[in-house]
Amino acid sequence: MLTRVKSAVAGFMGGIMAGGSSGSGGNPGSELPLKFPYMRPDFLGLSPDEIECSADHIARPILILKETRRLPWATGYAEVINAGKSALNEDQACCEVVVARRRPMSYCPPSTPTKTPTAKRRNSLPNGEGLGLRMEHSTLGEESEGLVFHYWALFDGHAGSGAAVVASRLLQHHIACQLQAVIEILRNLASPPPTVLGEEPDCNPYLQGNTPHRALTRAASLRGATGAPGSPCSTPPPPRFFTEKKIQHESLVIGAIENAFKEMDAQIEREKQVFNITGGCTALTVVYLLGKLFVGNAGDSRAIIIRNNEIIPMSTEFTPESERQRLQFLGFMQPHLLGNEFTHLEFPRRVQRKEVGKRMLYRDFTMNGWAYKTIEDEDLKFPLIYGEGKKARVLATIGVTRGLGDHDLKVHDSNIFIKPFLSCCPEVKVYNLTHYEHGADDVLVMGTDGLWDVLSNQEVAEAVTAFLANCDPDDLHRYTMAAQDLVMRARGILRDRGWRITNERLGSGDDISVFIIPLMYGNRQP
Amino acid sequence: MLTRVKSAVAGFMGGIMAGGSSGSGGNPGSELPLKFPYMRPDFLGLSPDEIECSADHIARPILILKETRRLPWATGYAEVINAGKSALNEDQACCEVVVARRRPMSYCPPSTPTKTPTAKRRNSLPNGEGLGLRMEHSTLGEESEGLVFHYWALFDGHAGSGAAVVASRLLQHHIACQLQAVIEILRNLASPPPTVLGEEPDCNPYLQGNTPHRALTRAASLRGATGAPGSPCSTPPPPRFFTEKKIQHESLVIGAIENAFKEMDAQIEREKQVFNITGGCTALTVVYLLGKLFVGNAGDSRAIIIRNNEIIPMSTEFTPESERQRLQFLGFMQPHLLGNEFTHLEFPRRVQRKEVGKRMLYRDFTMNGWAYKTIEDEDLKFPLIYGEGKKARVLATIGVTRGLGDHDLKVHDSNIFIKPFLSCCPEVKVYNLTHYEHGADDVLVMGTDGLWDVLSNQEVAEAVTAFLANCDPDDLHRYTMAAQDLVMRARGILRDRGWRITNERLGSGDDISVFIIPLMYGNRQP
Repeated sequence: MLTRVKSAVAGFMGGIMAGGSSGSGGNPGSELPLKFPYMRPDFLGLSPDEIECSADHIARPILILKETRRLPWATGYAEVINAGKSALNEDQACCEVVVARRRPMSYCPPSTPTKTPTAKRRNSLPNGEGLGLRMEHSTLGEESEGLVFHYWALFDGHAGSGAAVVASRLLQHHIACQLQAVIEILRNLASPPPTVLGEEPDCNPYLQGNTPHRALTRAASLRGATGAPGSPCSTPPPPRFFTEKKIQHESLVIGAIENAFKEMDAQIEREKQVFNITGGCTALTVVYLLGKLFVGNAGDSRAIIIRNNEIIPMSTEFTPESERQRLQFLGFMQPHLLGNEFTHLEFPRRVQRKEVGKRMLYRDFTMNGWAYKTIEDEDLKFPLIYGEGKKARVLATIGVTRGLGDHDLKVHDSNIFIKPFLSCCPEVKVYNLTHYEHGADDVLVMGTDGLWDVLSNQEVAEAVTAFLANCDPDDLHRYTMAAQDLVMRARGILRDRGWRITNERLGSGDDISVFIIPLMYGNRQP
Repeated sequence: MLTRVKSAVAGFMGGIMAGGSSGSGGNPGSELPLKFPYMRPDFLGLSPDEIECSADHIARPILILKETRRLPWATGYAEVINAGKSALNEDQACCEVVVARRRPMSYCPPSTPTKTPTAKRRNSLPNGEGLGLRMEHSTLGEESEGLVFHYWALFDGHAGSGAAVVASRLLQHHIACQLQAVIEILRNLASPPPTVLGEEPDCNPYLQGNTPHRALTRAASLRGATGAPGSPCSTPPPPRFFTEKKIQHESLVIGAIENAFKEMDAQIEREKQVFNITGGCTALTVVYLLGKLFVGNAGDSRAIIIRNNEIIPMSTEFTPESERQRLQFLGFMQPHLLGNEFTHLEFPRRVQRKEVGKRMLYRDFTMNGWAYKTIEDEDLKFPLIYGEGKKARVLATIGVTRGLGDHDLKVHDSNIFIKPFLSCCPEVKVYNLTHYEHGADDVLVMGTDGLWDVLSNQEVAEAVTAFLANCDPDDLHRYTMAAQDLVMRARGILRDRGWRITNERLGSGDDISVFIIPLMYGNRQP
């Protein structure tokens, strides 16, 4: 084992290793150069020797931020490699203060609202790279010219570390890029975001009607008020028929993060043509802007806020079980995506041929309960969702349903792509830091599933709270020590040929990465 | 107004009126006979004179259960007609104790799991009527032979009362019919529901592999454990690879209610060929079985539990706004459903032709936030979802997104059907009555949107709690008096040519129907 690790380390140290090996076998893009070499987070400041030691699957040393190094807000960080499931640590992390500078709008790739299925998404993407230019945003300075945001992110890779490495280097710039288009609007909180940019409506725009549309002149619609009539501008109707939806500034930040994830995913897809970008990754990001934390999640990492012994979940996991109905609905609406190999129906186990004609429990995308149906030949296909808990899989292939990358991932020995079921779209939750006076022990904890698979929210909250209570409140290193403590509790101790945590439970054999972000600094540095 | 009501009443009293008039104009099935005549709930025991008076849109008398009449659990009920928006009260209600008797399985129409889009749903439906037979279930008796459940339901009709009347007469029998298939299983709580009916597996069924499927022999899948291998029965692998999902009895009741809604909707669709069944309706049902309340909701009615001053929401409303992403996703996946007239994108207001090329706020089904996009010709189409709050509409036509009926409802002057967007599938929430010792003032309140549009959960809870506190706890009529009080508070008083409630707010001009169900009787009569 150690030998394998050492040769792997030797490989990536030379910058020529193809993004890490994985259990999935072949590596179709390995003749291409790497987009970025494998690395550990820059902010750890590891020496080559330290990186080599960090990949020891037997010792599993916990890496922490050195005392001489500081992250914004005195953020704490710790990580540990897995127990052998992949040669390299496929988790990646990023923490930066990012400046989105004012730019001409044409500079950023346009956001790409979803086209109808007949339109090829690839064709709708911008061809320009823009990447080298966009990197400029990450340098501090000229804040009066732009918009500053704090950024923390965790990426949990699978089938190679390529996508996780790329996302950890670039996603913040896609967010900056999306925010560029709305910098002026976000800096002017006194006015609501304009519906149309660069226009002063001289009359209620509903009423100018130079494009009469049948729907505009519809008679009374069902269950309430009428639709939008096409009356002339000179006789304004009661305003209730013509309300224009008021959008909050907060919604623009949410939209920017949502579209940044899509652009990041599209960039990985494009650049796989010229670079070796292996596998895929989950993404959990925190953006601090306008006095609020915006937590974007695509995958099964998790963020919680611990505030005065209260737990506030700031993300939900996207798994085959939590997304069953979305996936079944997609398979039902577009059966060709199932390649005549899978059924969108769920059964408690595989159906056998001899059971055709008998009645078996099932459920479809409309159901949360179960009922019996008569088994038909069609039901012998493999279920789109199969297995329970951590063993649940989509298309018998993948155990997470949101993330970046994986564009060439197919069902083994078939032409069935996972990607339409695996979505890159995050869910964004918002926490207003100004609504509460936070103490030194109020924190946001971000962790990859290696942490949460073995520790509950409650256990994490109790451990962090107890640990911080025993630290000097003025010690800025306390959050890193608390993160180290958490990773230790989730990894456990190597005993009897296995990693054990409290109560003799099994520790996590997965990569584990943890940020602990104290919240009081948000209030102090708006 | 009164004249119009009187002639309407004269019409329906003769049993020949076509299900009530509505604001939607034409009535394509009016030459067909009614499935059931218009009525008020049987349990009110109204005389023809009382029914005529009840439809007075000026006086708007509140109808309550007579003191001499009792509903199960001393349930309270009150209702009032709208202020003129439709000639008849389009709300309907039902409360019964239903017995599902043991029957040969072939007796009930089979549950119809959703077919792939290419299969016509109509063809998959059973042709048999079964209705007259199914009516037998509603009589009490022979409980040892069957399964008894308590049932309460509210239906809020639109564009005619036909669908609401039919659903209020028949939905409970569809639930009984679905439960028939699982009576033996539900009566034997000691054993988990069998995955397959009528079979004793002699070996782990996964391992018999007489239908080798490629997916069964897949190698290690991503992010965790392997898939299901096809090893022989004689060498059983570790059981964790072959877990069979354990289904709870509760899930069978949920599945029965879900499928009953679908069967009810399918029956309305079938019978519209031979009967005049106007419009559509929302449906909110409560089933008491196995010591639990199962609350099924398809529409914008609402149920809450008030327990010791705590409010427990037992339903969520389905509206164009709450279901935006499902509807946009459907329109995106099946653009032909939008008939080249609508766009699945949402904008804060209609786009004008002169704005093409400018940038406007939008969001698609993947977004909760908003971003700017460059307006194209395509965006000039009418938005699939349009308007805010009670004025939000799907396809510029309907303000509710789940319910029964409406099979012939189309966008005005087009061939675009509303139905695929309007779903009949309910959400079912469960409340275990045995987990709490309920007092006389702990109740479940069911109301149509006429109640909740003007009173918040908190206002309803405070009103009911205060009212019941002033009643004799032994007065079984107290829940009906409390329901009457709620309807009065929501309707208000006719003053200055308008209905006014507290703080000079506008009262509800809609039909209002309320059940108040005391929960302590559930514990006493399991």
